[in-house]
Amino acid sequence: MGNSFGRIFRISTFGESHGLGLGVVIDGCPAGLPIDEDFIRSEMQRRKPGQSKITTQRKEEDDFQILSGVFEGKSTGTPIGMVIMNTDQKSKDYSHIADKFRPSHADFTYFEKYGIRDYRGGGRSSARETAARVAAGAIAKMMLRHYGISVQAYVSQVGDLKLEKSYQELNLDLTEENIVRCPDSEMAEKMIDFIDEVRKSRDTVGGIVSCVAKGVPAGLGEPVFDRLHAELGKAMLSINAVKGFEYGSGFEGVKMRGSQHNDAIHQVEGKVRTKTNFSGGIQGGISNGEDIYFNVAFKPVATIMQDQDSINEAGEAVTVSGKGRHDPCVVPRAVPIVEAMAALVLADYLLISRTNKL
Amino acid sequence: MGNSFGRIFRISTFGESHGLGLGVVIDGCPAGLPIDEDFIRSEMQRRKPGQSKITTQRKEEDDFQILSGVFEGKSTGTPIGMVIMNTDQKSKDYSHIADKFRPSHADFTYFEKYGIRDYRGGGRSSARETAARVAAGAIAKMMLRHYGISVQAYVSQVGDLKLEKSYQELNLDLTEENIVRCPDSEMAEKMIDFIDEVRKSRDTVGGIVSCVAKGVPAGLGEPVFDRLHAELGKAMLSINAVKGFEYGSGFEGVKMRGSQHNDAIHQVEGKVRTKTNFSGGIQGGISNGEDIYFNVAFKPVATIMQDQDSINEAGEAVTVSGKGRHDPCVVPRAVPIVEAMAALVLADYLLISRTNKL
Amino acid sequence: MGNSFGRIFRISTFGESHGLGLGVVIDGCPAGLPIDEDFIRSEMQRRKPGQSKITTQRKEEDDFQILSGVFEGKSTGTPIGMVIMNTDQKSKDYSHIADKFRPSHADFTYFEKYGIRDYRGGGRSSARETAARVAAGAIAKMMLRHYGISVQAYVSQVGDLKLEKSYQELNLDLTEENIVRCPDSEMAEKMIDFIDEVRKSRDTVGGIVSCVAKGVPAGLGEPVFDRLHAELGKAMLSINAVKGFEYGSGFEGVKMRGSQHNDAIHQVEGKVRTKTNFSGGIQGGISNGEDIYFNVAFKPVATIMQDQDSINEAGEAVTVSGKGRHDPCVVPRAVPIVEAMAALVLADYLLISRTNKL
Amino acid sequence: MGNSFGRIFRISTFGESHGLGLGVVIDGCPAGLPIDEDFIRSEMQRRKPGQSKITTQRKEEDDFQILSGVFEGKSTGTPIGMVIMNTDQKSKDYSHIADKFRPSHADFTYFEKYGIRDYRGGGRSSARETAARVAAGAIAKMMLRHYGISVQAYVSQVGDLKLEKSYQELNLDLTEENIVRCPDSEMAEKMIDFIDEVRKSRDTVGGIVSCVAKGVPAGLGEPVFDRLHAELGKAMLSINAVKGFEYGSGFEGVKMRGSQHNDAIHQVEGKVRTKTNFSGGIQGGISNGEDIYFNVAFKPVATIMQDQDSINEAGEAVTVSGKGRHDPCVVPRAVPIVEAMAALVLADYLLISRTNKL
Repeated sequence: MGNSFGRIFRISTFGESHGLGLGVVIDGCPAGLPIDEDFIRSEMQRRKPGQSKITTQRKEEDDFQILSGVFEGKSTGTPIGMVIMNTDQKSKDYSHIADKFRPSHADFTYFEKYGIRDYRGGGRSSARETAARVAAGAIAKMMLRHYGISVQAYVSQVGDLKLEKSYQELNLDLTEENIVRCPDSEMAEKMIDFIDEVRKSRDTVGGIVSCVAKGVPAGLGEPVFDRLHAELGKAMLSINAVKGFEYGSGFEGVKMRGSQHNDAIHQVEGKVRTKTNFSGGIQGGISNGEDIYFNVAFKPVATIMQDQDSINEAGEAVTVSGKGRHDPCVVPRAVPIVEAMAALVLADYLLISRTNKL
Repeated sequence: MGNSFGRIFRISTFGESHGLGLGVVIDGCPAGLPIDEDFIRSEMQRRKPGQSKITTQRKEEDDFQILSGVFEGKSTGTPIGMVIMNTDQKSKDYSHIADKFRPSHADFTYFEKYGIRDYRGGGRSSARETAARVAAGAIAKMMLRHYGISVQAYVSQVGDLKLEKSYQELNLDLTEENIVRCPDSEMAEKMIDFIDEVRKSRDTVGGIVSCVAKGVPAGLGEPVFDRLHAELGKAMLSINAVKGFEYGSGFEGVKMRGSQHNDAIHQVEGKVRTKTNFSGGIQGGISNGEDIYFNVAFKPVATIMQDQDSINEAGEAVTVSGKGRHDPCVVPRAVPIVEAMAALVLADYLLISRTNKL
Repeated sequence: MGNSFGRIFRISTFGESHGLGLGVVIDGCPAGLPIDEDFIRSEMQRRKPGQSKITTQRKEEDDFQILSGVFEGKSTGTPIGMVIMNTDQKSKDYSHIADKFRPSHADFTYFEKYGIRDYRGGGRSSARETAARVAAGAIAKMMLRHYGISVQAYVSQVGDLKLEKSYQELNLDLTEENIVRCPDSEMAEKMIDFIDEVRKSRDTVGGIVSCVAKGVPAGLGEPVFDRLHAELGKAMLSINAVKGFEYGSGFEGVKMRGSQHNDAIHQVEGKVRTKTNFSGGIQGGISNGEDIYFNVAFKPVATIMQDQDSINEAGEAVTVSGKGRHDPCVVPRAVPIVEAMAALVLADYLLISRTNKL
Repeated sequence: MGNSFGRIFRISTFGESHGLGLGVVIDGCPAGLPIDEDFIRSEMQRRKPGQSKITTQRKEEDDFQILSGVFEGKSTGTPIGMVIMNTDQKSKDYSHIADKFRPSHADFTYFEKYGIRDYRGGGRSSARETAARVAAGAIAKMMLRHYGISVQAYVSQVGDLKLEKSYQELNLDLTEENIVRCPDSEMAEKMIDFIDEVRKSRDTVGGIVSCVAKGVPAGLGEPVFDRLHAELGKAMLSINAVKGFEYGSGFEGVKMRGSQHNDAIHQVEGKVRTKTNFSGGIQGGISNGEDIYFNVAFKPVATIMQDQDSINEAGEAVTVSGKGRHDPCVVPRAVPIVEAMAALVLADYLLISRTNKL
């Protein structure tokens, strides 16, 4: 269970890092949406390994095929099936970890849960699974664009290096200008240097991805359990290595007084607006028309090029060490994944909101 | 939509703060569970308004009736329907807010979504809805107890007053010893004084509830979207006034190196254990047998006894001010709600995990 | 599990025949629907026991209360919770069947499934549960009426007495004119006499309820698994005592040739219509704008006033015989239940269809 | 929506008859199940076109690939993704029907629903979609076999030619001995001749597939809406061309008296059994351990080699006639599809039943 996400615009993903291939089925994409395959491809490029010196040098081709649900360039309303074949899945050597449990990986927990040890590069727990999310998310983004909604993420923290500016003070168009995907070029420089240094020390480090959705109409969100931010939170927490989620004022907001935190309401050019936006564009679990913004915390990647204590399947103490090429910091490549998941939530809730009134 | 939670152990809640009553249907509680009504009652007491000087002085009786699903003191496997009647729902006067949108409340967003203005004390967006969650959560807790699993929450921060000790350094049995539900009596004193002061200044303040689940067996959690922490996160974010969720190392973890953060594995008395627990008991979305712990951030309550700028339904600028008796800080009463939602997630995932292997 | 039905317009029912009460939660009724409580009451009267000499003489009051989701006479978009209290639940004596399994009842299967024996009048398997469906169905009917859709059922067969006329040849307005709910008064007379005779012989008999939905727009139904007729079929098969479902040409259609069975298409007054309607208004699982019609087969009621062979919990051979007042034939009272379930399916699919196109 | 089926053992299918390919994702297959690809292949052969003179002569290769979820010959618990490529999807000429609506096909209804006309051989409404169901059903069958449960279907009626024997009087092992899949060789002969004659007259005819599940343990089924037979009914009604479903005594049962129809209970060799089985192995929606049996009615195939009246997209009257090679009668090839869907329901409910008791 658990490999589907969404209610109306619903995706089901499948595939391991080292099986024949992976893919996604989108059920519920409305008919008539122009599908731009180049856009999907460009989104997948942003997630792809090997794109810069601060990401893993592993090569994955990530070429996808749309098998169904699109006819003459448009969605037909039937399920969109997409597959991404794993071109080099047989070439890897996993003998060094085949019977060992890598610390802070999912090796032990999958084994406990399923009684099966799929030691090939993490199997289903590998971040390779997110390629399918990005493909589906690209289609959700196209739908949102049709309704004037944009979703943009960027790196706001790496280790202790924290961007103190809010998203309003940044030019988010600059995000893709550098390899760490931080829209402040000065900070980006520092982050890149820092990640490179961490990589050379055979270690890894965590970071934060921030995200902003603009143009979201008021009225999206389904209280009480399916509040818009609750679903966004779940979506983000379902991404590999995520440890936390906050929106609007977030954890800092707990220190504030109600008199500071409340967003006064006024009218601007005939539209209902709030003067501040500590609410993060969501009140009572429903969008209010303001920008939605949130932060997602990623832990340091668990695969490090150092010896670590662990045990094997027989329970014997062993030493484990990462091999091959791994990301020293996951956040640059996580940016398109965060966007994809946010787009999927918004597309789904946009469709659901059509059923709210008579 | 959106008023149900869970897959197997699934609840559906209904009811507004000022309608005739509210309630919950639990579908999927396994048959044979002894149902202790006194325990349900005691859990609801913990959430009830008017329990101390730092909570709202509003009186709600919160007496529940189990209409179905229990026979001769045990669950029968059929839906457990519970209702909680609103005894004083007609007595309130809402004329002062009937056509106004209160800042940072859900008034405007519900109106946009549904085109209906239910001005009676917040309607469905009122925290009164959580009474039904606590009733259902009490039954989930009884089931967990049967399997040796406990869930305990406590207040770890109010405004800037932050408990620096980890849950391991605290005696959580002391949580219920004071009215703010902080297990450190010295800090509790400070928090109480602070909340009282905030209340006197006719303002409100936020805080953090921390929670620990002990005895959770390895193997709970359904990757990839329904990771255990993703569902816990959604559950917490679905509680009124919550702005953030983090588990294990959380947001602080982003600053760490992989070499620090990884939890080395060893055997202790024949059991697989981790030496540290930055993972928060969950790896790859699946429990590993260690303690699960997480933090939940609550914003300052939006209802304050001060004048605030807003507009009315006609779009005219108006002044809004809280009346009556409201919580100056929500976290003391949020403790049982956090526990209830965590218990519901764990009960559900425990049942799901029975289907993982042949 | 299994006590909820529908995706958007979704109901969850709870309650046993002899617990404190039963009820239903409707989540997803669009906001703004005028709720006519008198209409709900009149629908429940149609299902109520004791309404005529050919139904059980048992008295049930079936008075409902709407606890939530309705404000100032309109649905608010939040869950509509309804309860129906059991006024006489403690007065019955079940000692004669408490440890016996009644033939063709659910006694044995519930016991096997849940390990619990709730011997009070069938517990959750009692047809009393359908009172909650009729209450919810009345609200679905009001929504359908708003969109010009009607659902009407009638009795077309009792034992061997079969109405040979099609629904087009009948005046369905006459259905409620007689106590068996057959729109042909002559046949109705025969059916009533026959049921009465069966009753006097301390036996029971089966029958067929037919149903027609008019005004259903083209485009409702979600292939491939959630075809409109598949969901209607499931809805009907979920009613107590139902053994079969067929729509359009049904089982008779298997004997036809394609050249006879195909419904030629033409235009009538600018509207696409079919010349015949063997399809029953549904093609490829999607409504085509023609009348939808179907038949539902009900077995003879299992409770008979005669001695029957069975066993008790201990496995010993025993004799079981019905006591009290039971329906000799279920179809007259099943008419409103069939309508309610059909209305729930159509209301749900109408809302879903809003999400089909961009 | 609507392209997924099941709760725990849940499938999602995708693909059109003439897109690049189709497939299925199985989420929830328990880990540790040996996966026999040859068995899947043999099941797909039974459904394949071109297998005999009474089926369509169309060639489809139906070769599948398992992309994920299986490792070293066993299910891993993660989603099993399977694809079946359409090898000749570009070669067809659909100009003769591209803008016409074929009578009793889904052309018009899909167009109304989605606003898109995918004229390529029926698109998603084509029976080719059932290839994915058979592939998934084969895996469900392997799981059932592990628990001693078998599912076997056969043709019991073609046009007026009806097998009067019950399944107990037949040797179902003979089903695959002839091309019409009727276990009575004499009747099979007649059916084959009849279908051949119908084919020569450029027409089509309907039929009935009967199915028996043996070895199903007592306790499967989730009342009240998800009764076992309700879900079986939905599964069957979701198959192309199905018009009706009945189980146990079915439509004939309505003529019986309760005293005849009730299945007396006794013990046989220490096991609880019923003396008769008009209940069809299901009481109150829950299996009782007896054989489950049901009938599925299929209409005559809509594609006939004769001129028929219809209209085109512009609303003009046109003549439509089938081209190419189509089945004169669908039931021989429907046998494995009925089995597949039945197996999927039983596998799902078997897993769900693990959560019924504490």
